[in-house]
Amino acid sequence: MSTVNIVDRPALFAGLYRELELDPKETAVVAVDMHRGHLDMDVATMPATPEDAVRVIANAEAALDYARAKGVPVIHVILVYRKLPGIGSEGMVSPFWQAMHAAMREEDRLVPGRASTVREHNIEGTPGTEIIPELLRKGDYVIDNKKRLDCFYGTDLRFLLDTLGVKNVVLMGINTNTCVLNTAFTAFNFDYRVVVLSDCVASMYGEDLHVLGLQNVARCLGWVINNEQFFEKLDAGAAGAKR
Amino acid sequence: MSTVNIVDRPALFAGLYRELELDPKETAVVAVDMHRGHLDMDVATMPATPEDAVRVIANAEAALDYARAKGVPVIHVILVYRKLPGIGSEGMVSPFWQAMHAAMREEDRLVPGRASTVREHNIEGTPGTEIIPELLRKGDYVIDNKKRLDCFYGTDLRFLLDTLGVKNVVLMGINTNTCVLNTAFTAFNFDYRVVVLSDCVASMYGEDLHVLGLQNVARCLGWVINNEQFFEKLDAGAAGAKR
Amino acid sequence: MSTVNIVDRPALFAGLYRELELDPKETAVVAVDMHRGHLDMDVATMPATPEDAVRVIANAEAALDYARAKGVPVIHVILVYRKLPGIGSEGMVSPFWQAMHAAMREEDRLVPGRASTVREHNIEGTPGTEIIPELLRKGDYVIDNKKRLDCFYGTDLRFLLDTLGVKNVVLMGINTNTCVLNTAFTAFNFDYRVVVLSDCVASMYGEDLHVLGLQNVARCLGWVINNEQFFEKLDAGAAGAKR
Amino acid sequence: MSTVNIVDRPALFAGLYRELELDPKETAVVAVDMHRGHLDMDVATMPATPEDAVRVIANAEAALDYARAKGVPVIHVILVYRKLPGIGSEGMVSPFWQAMHAAMREEDRLVPGRASTVREHNIEGTPGTEIIPELLRKGDYVIDNKKRLDCFYGTDLRFLLDTLGVKNVVLMGINTNTCVLNTAFTAFNFDYRVVVLSDCVASMYGEDLHVLGLQNVARCLGWVINNEQFFEKLDAGAAGAKR
Repeated sequence: MSTVNIVDRPALFAGLYRELELDPKETAVVAVDMHRGHLDMDVATMPATPEDAVRVIANAEAALDYARAKGVPVIHVILVYRKLPGIGSEGMVSPFWQAMHAAMREEDRLVPGRASTVREHNIEGTPGTEIIPELLRKGDYVIDNKKRLDCFYGTDLRFLLDTLGVKNVVLMGINTNTCVLNTAFTAFNFDYRVVVLSDCVASMYGEDLHVLGLQNVARCLGWVINNEQFFEKLDAGAAGAKR
Repeated sequence: MSTVNIVDRPALFAGLYRELELDPKETAVVAVDMHRGHLDMDVATMPATPEDAVRVIANAEAALDYARAKGVPVIHVILVYRKLPGIGSEGMVSPFWQAMHAAMREEDRLVPGRASTVREHNIEGTPGTEIIPELLRKGDYVIDNKKRLDCFYGTDLRFLLDTLGVKNVVLMGINTNTCVLNTAFTAFNFDYRVVVLSDCVASMYGEDLHVLGLQNVARCLGWVINNEQFFEKLDAGAAGAKR
Repeated sequence: MSTVNIVDRPALFAGLYRELELDPKETAVVAVDMHRGHLDMDVATMPATPEDAVRVIANAEAALDYARAKGVPVIHVILVYRKLPGIGSEGMVSPFWQAMHAAMREEDRLVPGRASTVREHNIEGTPGTEIIPELLRKGDYVIDNKKRLDCFYGTDLRFLLDTLGVKNVVLMGINTNTCVLNTAFTAFNFDYRVVVLSDCVASMYGEDLHVLGLQNVARCLGWVINNEQFFEKLDAGAAGAKR
Repeated sequence: MSTVNIVDRPALFAGLYRELELDPKETAVVAVDMHRGHLDMDVATMPATPEDAVRVIANAEAALDYARAKGVPVIHVILVYRKLPGIGSEGMVSPFWQAMHAAMREEDRLVPGRASTVREHNIEGTPGTEIIPELLRKGDYVIDNKKRLDCFYGTDLRFLLDTLGVKNVVLMGINTNTCVLNTAFTAFNFDYRVVVLSDCVASMYGEDLHVLGLQNVARCLGWVINNEQFFEKLDAGAAGAKR
């Protein structure tokens, strides 16, 4: 099971891309867990690779600035755990994460090859819960009570999107194959148009699952585009033109 | 992007496997879209490969028989679409599926290389909506109002699981990387223990997304085991022993 | 606590009535638990009064016929309980209903003065689960997996309403102060316009709670109108006129 | 419709009371909208009566202190509205509240006889969103993204209750017949045991809807008890004794 050949579908992707329209008035960017707990190597408890952190922060800053300039709202959704007496982190109620902590050893971590922990991840009041400063601007919305992988679960994200009149949900953030993918699934299920920005996502679990996450979205439930394509679609949408 | 190297994690998987306990009294099998619309080549509108259909039906029959014999409830969750006046299939309200139909051509289908359609898929009253007879037994539960990818969305699955006292959700069905994976995500988010039976799942989207769907579960949110391992864990659970 | 004076708000109600518009294209009627388990005295296990049953069935038939003639979809939502091995009715998992059964005596029932039971209410396959025939027509939608008081909980009602483009939810059924009121609350929370048809609702719990249910809707979350007003608003809505 | 006779059910209530057990380890108090926007006459935009505010604050302080001393967690759930560009308060997306503002006049307000407004109610950053200081202690939980009437809608309340192992939800707050009643309905639907503390609730809509809200809970979905009874049940639950 060590190598997988990706099924190529260039004609289908080209056709789908032609169908994509992004009217800025009906679009929002949802930035998923763009916090120091993933992206600041000094404090991260579930770190992306340093290279990915640099790449994603730079690209996300550009994408968010472009979006804001077109009047597209930016919604940050951030995981924050309470520390409960006698229980510890809210994360540790999960039976899988309990098993992960019981099973993993120093040389064999949740994040391959890097120190990582659910138990201490993004506890209320710790630096990990801070949004990367370059990505946060006045006027952005912040939802900071995400508890598991899906940005919609236990939050008012759907309410906010509908209140803002959003039909197109543009996703960026960490991890491509977990929180971004899970949120893409739910956004699809709720009949939003789902877009993932490939320049602005990464996975701490490995390049393979990053690629999977993108392929899974592109072939089954939405659009995967890079920053340049995102800007093109926003320009076209603002001009009211279909290309 | 044509080849992906899978990150190998045998030590972690071995450790997680040791942590897995399946008490039959707290376990249910959820069979996802095991209907003729995916698995009967004569009528399928979103067909798995013929080889996968044979493999999955045979293995699922064995797994379900074993589970029932241990007192484990079996819950079939099936997608069925109403046909609405002036709208057509409920499926076609999805903006991605609309775009897919607009973009795809005869030689470039939703299911690579095989005739396939969302528009005519599993309309109420059509043969595609029938559960594969070998997999359905008296005493099984049937939930037949799934509308999108997540078995929990718009259904009473969570209510039924909790009413039955279920803590462990064992998944099988079609497709590994969409409905099974999306349901695994939600079951994880609801703090169930999530197990996917690798012998009893397949993907019409390609072997790559099948493999990566399993990797995604095994490394990020649950357990992927084969039938033999499932039987071993049920035996151990029934004996009240941890192995 | 034996008598309550209702706060009169005629001027406010008149003003709210003027604001109400019901475009048939954006309206649906949701008929709540209009089944024999409440309304057919021969089989009902949670019976309305015989007088209420006659009144509600006659008025509901008229309202539904009028609505269908205007192209307004009719959605029946019905409570049906599975009987689970070792558990009995799904209803009996509820701690309140368990306590109710433990506490109530022959002369002191759930429904004051009339034989009534949760334990045997609307079990799958029993006559109580049948929709009153006068109220069911070809082309109506039926959702039959309601499990508690809220028609939205564990069902695809929200999905169906949104798929049909509905913005106005018109409620009728049993009981005014439980399933109708709970569904009104949730429809309000989801930002639908909520209308309750006073001629087509009743409560088995007593006239006081019927009145409460209506007052609570009219003063806090929606509109309570009679059949005549409903027809007037549908006519005006069809004509595209605001009155 | 000016007077309503309450159906008396003393024998049933006595029987239900005997069935009620409140083990502090499985109990939480949910304080609903105990903020200055309802209870501080200097800033309230949806004010309770001054007398009710005094009564509810004093009784709630006593009940919360007693509960905390028994180890019962206290969860405050508070409505807070964002102010959105071009939209205003998130509250004003509701079609009923839009109609209410269009219909109501100076002498005929949402809250009978008192200045009141949805439009300016509990906007982010305003004093109305502050929890009444006497009721908030270190160690309490605060959920401050409630948007409509149901404390469960768009919040992580259910997640928190389940993480804490709660089976009994004890409600207090404002208003008896809207947010408290709606939350009671949903807690019932989720199979929690529902208790409302009659000494610690009030309604700005009028005494009639307060009384009928309590009747609705007590006869259809849960328990209505006063502070003294609450303390008695907590003592008995702590002692592991059923009385």
